[in-house]
Amino acid sequence: MVDKRCVRKAISLSAYPLIREFLGELSGTFVLVLCTIGTQAQAVLTKRKLAEFLANRMGDGIGVMAGIWVAGGVSGAHMNPAMTFALACTGKVPWRKVPAYWAAQYLGAFAATSCVFGVYYDAIYAQTGGQFIMTDEDPGFAAIFAPYPSAYLSTAGAVVDSIIGSTLLLICASAIVDQRNCKVPVPFIAFYMGFIVIGLGISHSMNCGLPINPARDFSARLFTYLVGWGPQVFSYDNWMWFWIPLVIPHFGAFLGAFIYIIFVSSHWPVV
Amino acid sequence: MVDKRCVRKAISLSAYPLIREFLGELSGTFVLVLCTIGTQAQAVLTKRKLAEFLANRMGDGIGVMAGIWVAGGVSGAHMNPAMTFALACTGKVPWRKVPAYWAAQYLGAFAATSCVFGVYYDAIYAQTGGQFIMTDEDPGFAAIFAPYPSAYLSTAGAVVDSIIGSTLLLICASAIVDQRNCKVPVPFIAFYMGFIVIGLGISHSMNCGLPINPARDFSARLFTYLVGWGPQVFSYDNWMWFWIPLVIPHFGAFLGAFIYIIFVSSHWPVV
Amino acid sequence: MVDKRCVRKAISLSAYPLIREFLGELSGTFVLVLCTIGTQAQAVLTKRKLAEFLANRMGDGIGVMAGIWVAGGVSGAHMNPAMTFALACTGKVPWRKVPAYWAAQYLGAFAATSCVFGVYYDAIYAQTGGQFIMTDEDPGFAAIFAPYPSAYLSTAGAVVDSIIGSTLLLICASAIVDQRNCKVPVPFIAFYMGFIVIGLGISHSMNCGLPINPARDFSARLFTYLVGWGPQVFSYDNWMWFWIPLVIPHFGAFLGAFIYIIFVSSHWPVV
Amino acid sequence: MVDKRCVRKAISLSAYPLIREFLGELSGTFVLVLCTIGTQAQAVLTKRKLAEFLANRMGDGIGVMAGIWVAGGVSGAHMNPAMTFALACTGKVPWRKVPAYWAAQYLGAFAATSCVFGVYYDAIYAQTGGQFIMTDEDPGFAAIFAPYPSAYLSTAGAVVDSIIGSTLLLICASAIVDQRNCKVPVPFIAFYMGFIVIGLGISHSMNCGLPINPARDFSARLFTYLVGWGPQVFSYDNWMWFWIPLVIPHFGAFLGAFIYIIFVSSHWPVV
Repeated sequence: MVDKRCVRKAISLSAYPLIREFLGELSGTFVLVLCTIGTQAQAVLTKRKLAEFLANRMGDGIGVMAGIWVAGGVSGAHMNPAMTFALACTGKVPWRKVPAYWAAQYLGAFAATSCVFGVYYDAIYAQTGGQFIMTDEDPGFAAIFAPYPSAYLSTAGAVVDSIIGSTLLLICASAIVDQRNCKVPVPFIAFYMGFIVIGLGISHSMNCGLPINPARDFSARLFTYLVGWGPQVFSYDNWMWFWIPLVIPHFGAFLGAFIYIIFVSSHWPVV
Repeated sequence: MVDKRCVRKAISLSAYPLIREFLGELSGTFVLVLCTIGTQAQAVLTKRKLAEFLANRMGDGIGVMAGIWVAGGVSGAHMNPAMTFALACTGKVPWRKVPAYWAAQYLGAFAATSCVFGVYYDAIYAQTGGQFIMTDEDPGFAAIFAPYPSAYLSTAGAVVDSIIGSTLLLICASAIVDQRNCKVPVPFIAFYMGFIVIGLGISHSMNCGLPINPARDFSARLFTYLVGWGPQVFSYDNWMWFWIPLVIPHFGAFLGAFIYIIFVSSHWPVV
Repeated sequence: MVDKRCVRKAISLSAYPLIREFLGELSGTFVLVLCTIGTQAQAVLTKRKLAEFLANRMGDGIGVMAGIWVAGGVSGAHMNPAMTFALACTGKVPWRKVPAYWAAQYLGAFAATSCVFGVYYDAIYAQTGGQFIMTDEDPGFAAIFAPYPSAYLSTAGAVVDSIIGSTLLLICASAIVDQRNCKVPVPFIAFYMGFIVIGLGISHSMNCGLPINPARDFSARLFTYLVGWGPQVFSYDNWMWFWIPLVIPHFGAFLGAFIYIIFVSSHWPVV
Repeated sequence: MVDKRCVRKAISLSAYPLIREFLGELSGTFVLVLCTIGTQAQAVLTKRKLAEFLANRMGDGIGVMAGIWVAGGVSGAHMNPAMTFALACTGKVPWRKVPAYWAAQYLGAFAATSCVFGVYYDAIYAQTGGQFIMTDEDPGFAAIFAPYPSAYLSTAGAVVDSIIGSTLLLICASAIVDQRNCKVPVPFIAFYMGFIVIGLGISHSMNCGLPINPARDFSARLFTYLVGWGPQVFSYDNWMWFWIPLVIPHFGAFLGAFIYIIFVSSHWPVV
């Protein structure tokens, strides 16, 4: 049906590594967000009946696994602008590649959000009657796509939460890929990263839904803006929320990568 | 007690690879469906008390693992006609083998459904009084075996759901077995595929129970038709449901395999 | 503190493989049952508040993993008389070793049951007031240790349940250790077997608690007899229950090992 | 941004192995406790709504995995003074290193407890109104940080619980790292240890929250003393509780390591 050899010759981009990495990053982030926001949709729409809290967290974690399996061998599967930023800061990704990675991540996340909206359109319509409304008291079904903070949380608390979450992510990610530490073979990095994300979700998601991935957050927020929830998705909490998951994870990720260098990886014995 | 050598000589089919693969595919699908529908039975019959949503999903995933462990080394353990179709389309399985694979898959699923019915016969009888009745409003215990869509779901929504689910399955499956990507060793493919199916179940099962495997669906539906739920299992929703899990996954699976080729595997650097 | 070399010389049994295997099997079954019945105790005593159904099943599965990690390299860690029987029938364990294996398994399970009783004595006492009573209607806290069938289950149903469960266990176990199938490396067999047991528990535990391990069942039942629940633990359901988990798994295990040979392992191409 | 080579030269401690191990142990314990107590905080503060029992246990287990991934290649990642003690007793760690390991473990746990307090300060404040009060009847939110025994538990029962838990931990840990047993490769030790801890948590946490790690327990208890819960955190139950998780695990761990030697590792055939 499809002559593979022929297709390959026609469209092969193996000579343009950055385009290849762009496509990989796009696919990986697409798969990640399809799982992550799909799970979130199922949890919110069934009031956690068909996705308990732990299932919800495992949806995130397995999304990370799946994304890395898809893109790991192509682009390293960061799937997270903050992680790309941290890896560029520590010299593991050249800065000239960063814009392409970021574009792929935001684009893939946006495409996946649209797909989830398509899959759950009937369910969302049935529950909202097509009225996509959110208020400062209750984000309602907009919370399917992008997270909103708990009522008790101060802005400072949200910043701390976002920093600790992304710091912890990068400490663990740096450790897992460090071949001088536990020597995790490449095929297991995806699996272990998924468990790290499950652990983070279980222990640090109560305040504001673990805001550690700007692409997953901002693309989904933009999507809810476009399909009808309106400017409220950005102006929530007097404009003091939407920029936190968009900006802060970059600092946390940098901090995490740096902490791992200071405390562990700068001390390996020279072989 | 059993002289293995003697048994082997008498019945060995190693000279007829297709028969061997037929038996493997049969065994694998049998084990898969025994876990999957067994879990579903336990969930429905105990009203999720002895199989919460996540347990239910893990039953599916571990069923996939077990099936691949049993048949992976023999036939590749597709256990899903749509996957066999997609692999044939992309040239990974010769077309002449497809009928045998399909027959094994439908047969194995039917045999396993019968076993689950036997195991849970007492429980089903105790709860129904032997009256196997379903209506268009409530599929009742027929939902143990084959899934039915939620009330809010349109036919178009069901088609989209089935396509996205099977597309995602094949993107991930193609990535996991692609030895140029994350280089997942053979013994781990089963394990990882199981997690993919858990992730899919958590994020895309709310609409109509993740209809991605025609063999598991149709064989179980046919079984419920035969043991007494009657033609209603097919005519449900004015004949607009039963063909969706039977036909649509083939398109979705093809699409997924193709997307992986377009976005990832056609761009590997030539070694 | 403890001079390892000295200890080793004094007590080393490396010259007596069967004693070594006896001790290994004893330790493995001890660890397995400590997890399994510990989990069950926690589930029953807290009314599943501190061990939901899935946690309960994972306790079983992780018990199997732990047992195999402890005894896998010594005795193969069957930890189940039915499995030892099936492996002897198919020639993988010499018959002369079977009695020692069985003794170790029943002994280890008994020791572990005593420990669990010790750990949860305060809790059991607080809830029963020291009155260990069970009736044919309600096994009460005796169900912590050995399982009892659901009220709706017929004797035939219990036999079918026990056979299907142990057949499935042996099909999967045979597949996982078969180095011509998925080539699962030794260090992963424990982990995968654990997942098989989780899957079995999720899909086939509703009728009578997955009676597939005679040692775990009989030793615990004997223990409850001795500490005060009395002969009722055996005479439950007019003596038509206690022998099912003790005897039937042997047939199921044999059947499973045989099915795997017939359908899969007798057809490997001769190398 | 950060010249890695330059940083390494300036701060490299590769010539001082003990300092390196101190920092590794510190980082590992920090990550472990950040997950463990973070999960506990989320469970208590949401009344298990955003961390069911199993999620709570998986938070512990994934914390152990993450800690070992971070410190495993540096210091072996004991992250538990009782484990360091047992390994020193059995000659696997030189006694002169023990004080440094212990200091790192208590320090790392204390630092992580502070971070968790920071992350959940808003939530704790919202629920307590800033009144950090505990009584002998109800430890209240102090139970987020350090565990307290159930009302029914006697002192003897707590001691037994702590011993069995830490014995089981060391039996399994010894087995997993024993390269003559299941030959678990280094990159999987973290993952398997995590599952052991999940299993322990499921089966032995009901009495008093699985008191097997003195550093995690005492540092968190000291922290609650300092931030305002006062001396009650130590004097709880007439001073008959706080020393149990601090002292007893050392005996249990020693016992576990010794049992594994007696029953398994002293009998390996001499190669």
